Amino acid sequence: MKNRPLKGIIPPLVTPLLDSDTLDVDGLERLIEHVIAGGVHGLFILGTTGEAQSLSYRLRAELIERTCRQLRGRLPVLVGVSDTSLAESKALACKAADCGAGAVVSAPPFYYAPAQPELMHFYTHLAQTLPLPLFLYNMPSHTKVSFAPATVRWLSDNKNIIGIKDSSANGVYFQQVCYALRDVEGFSLLVGPEEMLAETVLLGGHGGVTGGANIFPALYVELYSAAMAKDFVRILPLQQKVMQVSKLLYNVGRYGSSYLKGVKSALSVKGICSDVLASPFEHFYEKEREQIRASLEILNFEPSKASSRASIK
Amino acid sequence: MKNRPLKGIIPPLVTPLLDSDTLDVDGLERLIEHVIAGGVHGLFILGTTGEAQSLSYRLRAELIERTCRQLRGRLPVLVGVSDTSLAESKALACKAADCGAGAVVSAPPFYYAPAQPELMHFYTHLAQTLPLPLFLYNMPSHTKVSFAPATVRWLSDNKNIIGIKDSSANGVYFQQVCYALRDVEGFSLLVGPEEMLAETVLLGGHGGVTGGANIFPALYVELYSAAMAKDFVRILPLQQKVMQVSKLLYNVGRYGSSYLKGVKSALSVKGICSDVLASPFEHFYEKEREQIRASLEILNFEPSKASSRASIK
Amino acid sequence: MKNRPLKGIIPPLVTPLLDSDTLDVDGLERLIEHVIAGGVHGLFILGTTGEAQSLSYRLRAELIERTCRQLRGRLPVLVGVSDTSLAESKALACKAADCGAGAVVSAPPFYYAPAQPELMHFYTHLAQTLPLPLFLYNMPSHTKVSFAPATVRWLSDNKNIIGIKDSSANGVYFQQVCYALRDVEGFSLLVGPEEMLAETVLLGGHGGVTGGANIFPALYVELYSAAMAKDFVRILPLQQKVMQVSKLLYNVGRYGSSYLKGVKSALSVKGICSDVLASPFEHFYEKEREQIRASLEILNFEPSKASSRASIK
Amino acid sequence: MKNRPLKGIIPPLVTPLLDSDTLDVDGLERLIEHVIAGGVHGLFILGTTGEAQSLSYRLRAELIERTCRQLRGRLPVLVGVSDTSLAESKALACKAADCGAGAVVSAPPFYYAPAQPELMHFYTHLAQTLPLPLFLYNMPSHTKVSFAPATVRWLSDNKNIIGIKDSSANGVYFQQVCYALRDVEGFSLLVGPEEMLAETVLLGGHGGVTGGANIFPALYVELYSAAMAKDFVRILPLQQKVMQVSKLLYNVGRYGSSYLKGVKSALSVKGICSDVLASPFEHFYEKEREQIRASLEILNFEPSKASSRASIK
Repeated sequence: MKNRPLKGIIPPLVTPLLDSDTLDVDGLERLIEHVIAGGVHGLFILGTTGEAQSLSYRLRAELIERTCRQLRGRLPVLVGVSDTSLAESKALACKAADCGAGAVVSAPPFYYAPAQPELMHFYTHLAQTLPLPLFLYNMPSHTKVSFAPATVRWLSDNKNIIGIKDSSANGVYFQQVCYALRDVEGFSLLVGPEEMLAETVLLGGHGGVTGGANIFPALYVELYSAAMAKDFVRILPLQQKVMQVSKLLYNVGRYGSSYLKGVKSALSVKGICSDVLASPFEHFYEKEREQIRASLEILNFEPSKASSRASIK
Repeated sequence: MKNRPLKGIIPPLVTPLLDSDTLDVDGLERLIEHVIAGGVHGLFILGTTGEAQSLSYRLRAELIERTCRQLRGRLPVLVGVSDTSLAESKALACKAADCGAGAVVSAPPFYYAPAQPELMHFYTHLAQTLPLPLFLYNMPSHTKVSFAPATVRWLSDNKNIIGIKDSSANGVYFQQVCYALRDVEGFSLLVGPEEMLAETVLLGGHGGVTGGANIFPALYVELYSAAMAKDFVRILPLQQKVMQVSKLLYNVGRYGSSYLKGVKSALSVKGICSDVLASPFEHFYEKEREQIRASLEILNFEPSKASSRASIK
Repeated sequence: MKNRPLKGIIPPLVTPLLDSDTLDVDGLERLIEHVIAGGVHGLFILGTTGEAQSLSYRLRAELIERTCRQLRGRLPVLVGVSDTSLAESKALACKAADCGAGAVVSAPPFYYAPAQPELMHFYTHLAQTLPLPLFLYNMPSHTKVSFAPATVRWLSDNKNIIGIKDSSANGVYFQQVCYALRDVEGFSLLVGPEEMLAETVLLGGHGGVTGGANIFPALYVELYSAAMAKDFVRILPLQQKVMQVSKLLYNVGRYGSSYLKGVKSALSVKGICSDVLASPFEHFYEKEREQIRASLEILNFEPSKASSRASIK
Repeated sequence: MKNRPLKGIIPPLVTPLLDSDTLDVDGLERLIEHVIAGGVHGLFILGTTGEAQSLSYRLRAELIERTCRQLRGRLPVLVGVSDTSLAESKALACKAADCGAGAVVSAPPFYYAPAQPELMHFYTHLAQTLPLPLFLYNMPSHTKVSFAPATVRWLSDNKNIIGIKDSSANGVYFQQVCYALRDVEGFSLLVGPEEMLAETVLLGGHGGVTGGANIFPALYVELYSAAMAKDFVRILPLQQKVMQVSKLLYNVGRYGSSYLKGVKSALSVKGICSDVLASPFEHFYEKEREQIRASLEILNFEPSKASSRASIK
């Protein structure tokens, strides 16, 4: 990746599936063209939203291949290589490099929770041998451990470690990481939760890995650009729209998986790709799907000009 | 309190102590005048930073009396009445009303963690009988429970419940609460962690209950006013200063109590009040105190104009 | 308390209430005579089951007085003095001593979670000034901190600290505490969860503070005596009965408060005392109460001889 | 596996390594013969103690092959197939079946924490297609989710699901599972933490998957047999010895990984296998190794007859 730090909206792509171990190839193609048309600045495959950990390695490899081939260098592709095994992480990263991906993204090994020195050790090893630059992926709700800001700063001395995606939702933490990295040029500070995109970009963050950008890519691109421009006339209604998406689509049904199910259900209702989820999750039943359909209608026809423009694009 | 929503910087005052059960009366007077001189918009006594739960009720009553008397209405006083017992909460609130406080602040009962309907029940009872308007206090790290945004919205229909102070540090949560309350006029949305003051005010929050304002009141007042004005030339260096305060003063020594010890130690080094903490905590030993002293010198003589101005004031 | 270590079944008495701040005086009398008739070895008032933290100090004092007066020294009374404030803990302990209680019981201050050295400091201070011997109360789900086994061992050198009640439900932890205290004579090792009474007594524990003993005191007394005698013919059916009580009575309705509600509802159905709970909790509605009533019938008429004997007594 | 329920001591074998991705083949052979000589009743490879999640799939396959080949049916081999991906779990299980393993063991998918219905769904799918019977593996500290006792009961109707290994350390939970499964014949209830072996076997558990049995297999076998015989003259000193092993060997150094490092270091000091750990962990440095060596001397030469007998065997 030439331009550093990486900036903008990098959707964490869902993985369209026909069943737990079969890619929805047509859906994937439509989804990629849909988000590109929305103006996004990169793609992140095999993240949490991509259900990476639930997929077989064979399917992950196929997804990397197909995505990179379809992109043809139009945008940088980031590939999730999070794994509990260093060897398997490396194998995924090699695959990503072979296919022409731009970078890899790695959350801490998520079975045993490592201590900070153990994180330093793991990432130093990983970065040394990787054929691609590396983004740290902070996701404590799933990995049970957070990169201490000092650990991020220490790891940033490694030329192969070029950014962090923080999905902690912790606003103090994000500011602490920004402050710890204030003198490190070219290090990318990306936020996970889309609800925090505007505020982090306003204060120096470089962009967001926003799940809702699978469905409404232009909305997040527009909010990102408004925040970069410090244009509050646009920021405030777009932020309202982002909150509305979050409220209406991610809280249907119960359980922690409602976000995943909501995104895939919305994509299916919109005709973009299948709503099948990999085990252990199942897609919504008809009742919840109806709720998603109704919410999409509300979201598409809101009177606010700024946001409806964004979602029509 | 006439002006609603309450806005600005409302320092959560430390409780100056000579020993675990004796107020540092002179220190309290100096501290109050110090923060007023810094331009703060209100005072919050008996919060987490005020070590309320560690104090005897007798001392809490004395603190309420002395603070209100010294204020003479110059600023609104908010009084923490968080308690595990509804009866004791009410008693504290009556004392606050008698002394002329402007509002009370209450975190959920913190021994048994209540469920959302139980929170609704508790706060409805509390608000019904209170002689003063009430702020909700979200502090999940200490109370083990968070007010769901829908619970806040539901409780806001009670005319006596006029705001929330959110100390969760969760940026998604704060935005969800803002969104849920978007149509409720006069409801105050205050953030706890000072590291998030700027971003929340930029997106519609009303101010902060910032612990560092005990030491550097003008710094937070200035950052608040810059954020209200969307003046990024001032915001960014002030935000850096705020992060520096956080890094240098709140992480000395070990344990969760390092924040409390750091604030009191800094106030003691500055000659404002004693650094005694209530049991179960003890003040810093000489070594840590020296570190605080050195940090204060760094903080006071930084070259950035905006921030040094703020801290000299 | 003369006999050390304290042994046997010490029910954590519920606090019978007419409303949030009024004692059910007749219910309290019946409850005390009920558990004494069941053969228990002591009483523990103002614990978690006693809703201590939800009660006003006035009511707590009244409860101490009435309980001690009614006991007339027939059994040792342990009084919970857990508080976030050292001063208030001491005041409760003085009241307990004045009334003739045998010991006090104290969980760590439960708002700020103290570190181990801070726990040592707090309990050393508390024990020094107390007029009564002290039991440590390990309850991490409510206090967010556990006494490290080494901390318990260190505190046990204080002659005024004479035991621990462990409500962690952690079997490894209980064994670690037993092992750490193996050479300390007269130190009482009591377990909280009644489901673990048999196993801990078999391996050297001294008894249990079993909530179900409010309802079925003889059941737990019998299981304790069977475990002391290593009489497995009696232990196994009694353990089954204890598990049945736990399953049928403590999991009705939702929320963490279902245990509290279940115990009080069962006592009310049996005509012993009121089922009113202190705020923030409410008693069961009719539907749940019917479920408790049905469960009590199942529990009373089970064919197993050992257990039905226990519950008829 | 013919005999059900599976009973006794089934050591969770460490995986001897020369480096992160190379098996210590000679060490593995010695380790297997060492534990067989100690009288264990089965082997469990690729569990938490076996660092399964840190190993490449190639190495896991090699380990399955070599272990089964060396066993030649002398004891049943249980193979850990815990994975976040259903497809990879199945692949491991097929490998295990091909090599002649007796059963597989599976912890819940450990990246996304599934809800109870999602656990039911996942395990039903897994069990349907598996060529071997399945043990559930409850390990909430690593997987962030616990099988509800009712979920275990529900899954036990599946003829292919034949037991549970509970590593929660929660004594109430273990009793609840025992009670829920009381009528299910042939279902094996094994405990993880060795500190709880005696108490669970006394009350009806079937044995333990005790990590210390890598080092001192006969100690745990003897404690198991004493507990089965309800022979308290032997149980109590053996339990003391087990607690001493736990205290002296598992708490050297810092971090959650001290248990893993302690077991491997002890095996290395005893000349059984290498102490190399897979990334992200590193073996002990010389200082900690010396501490382990000193502890082993204490453990081997203790005067207690029962326990020294056990460890000399």
